[in-house]
Amino acid sequence: MSAGNTIDFWFTVGSTYTYLTVSRLHNVEAATGVRFRWRPFNARAIMQEMNNIPFATKPIKLAYMWRDIERRALKYGLPIKVPAPYPLKNFDLASRVAVLAEMEGWCPDYLRASYKRWFVESKEVGIEPNLSESLSEIGQDPDRVIEAANAEPVEREYDNNTREARRLNIFGSPTFVVRGEVFWGDDRLEDAIDWYANGTLRPV
Amino acid sequence: MSAGNTIDFWFTVGSTYTYLTVSRLHNVEAATGVRFRWRPFNARAIMQEMNNIPFATKPIKLAYMWRDIERRALKYGLPIKVPAPYPLKNFDLASRVAVLAEMEGWCPDYLRASYKRWFVESKEVGIEPNLSESLSEIGQDPDRVIEAANAEPVEREYDNNTREARRLNIFGSPTFVVRGEVFWGDDRLEDAIDWYANGTLRPV
Repeated sequence: MSAGNTIDFWFTVGSTYTYLTVSRLHNVEAATGVRFRWRPFNARAIMQEMNNIPFATKPIKLAYMWRDIERRALKYGLPIKVPAPYPLKNFDLASRVAVLAEMEGWCPDYLRASYKRWFVESKEVGIEPNLSESLSEIGQDPDRVIEAANAEPVEREYDNNTREARRLNIFGSPTFVVRGEVFWGDDRLEDAIDWYANGTLRPV
Repeated sequence: MSAGNTIDFWFTVGSTYTYLTVSRLHNVEAATGVRFRWRPFNARAIMQEMNNIPFATKPIKLAYMWRDIERRALKYGLPIKVPAPYPLKNFDLASRVAVLAEMEGWCPDYLRASYKRWFVESKEVGIEPNLSESLSEIGQDPDRVIEAANAEPVEREYDNNTREARRLNIFGSPTFVVRGEVFWGDDRLEDAIDWYANGTLRPV
């Protein structure tokens, strides 16, 4: 359930625009005092149910996506080297590790480390060497984590999160939810914060 | 061809998010001093070529779109009543009238008048009474305009614009082009202006 005093940040590891969010969210928290609750879910499953294929079959739109992400990374002062490997071979394991990380309290660190390797060093998330390198960097044991990420409690939590996302009419990553109000896309983060503070979007 | 001292604003009448742009662009021009060149084209044809169906077959995403547009209209101080009629029965005539309007110098007035009827009074663009009411309001004779919009010079210009849009890798409406750099979506208008002024996106 969404708490009243936080913004829920719903995401799937494997979403490209999510790089921007996971990399700037700690700065946003520091600047605004708003707290975010990280909610990993399976956006790919929901998108398949909707036959929503934004990029994989659309090369012109895909090329635009990389350029748009590159420009916005510069805007946020984030390093980037595009195109990064895409689509991913094993996005599902990467997201299940995020579920475990959220259960154990090291989710933001894991996401920042693994997305940085993906978007700056061209090392795909969800497979080696990104997975073990990212986990080692943040002080987690790769063998333990991968075993736990494949076990039943994580699977159940991942399914529960995805079911909850579906109930909230979430259909992509990243998505921000403020007291039931849904904002889709990294470029709606400021709108979500505005809504959190004021219950509306203030006129510009 | 795109002039060096303007931003090209590419659009199709029938695009929903384009309501935000056509309704706020004169205020943006007044505030920034940037001039926009209005370029009507057939986004629907390009989207069909790409099998890009963003909303029509995706009810959850469609419902989100209306809510997102409604919120952002409030942000820009624009009146709105959603959902507006969608999709349109005759988007093509509405866009051809825009082509004629651009050739004759009354394009922004036509777009503001017809989009306002569509998004505030639920009167679909491209058909009556929206078409004649909008044209009469801005001092144009509906009979003359509709005849000219269906004639060969407008058809040729419309095709030329669509060909030029395809060459620029434009795939949706609204799109802003600044010296070859493509920005898609009303929510990228500020990025386009930043690029126009600075040749990059300034860090935030």
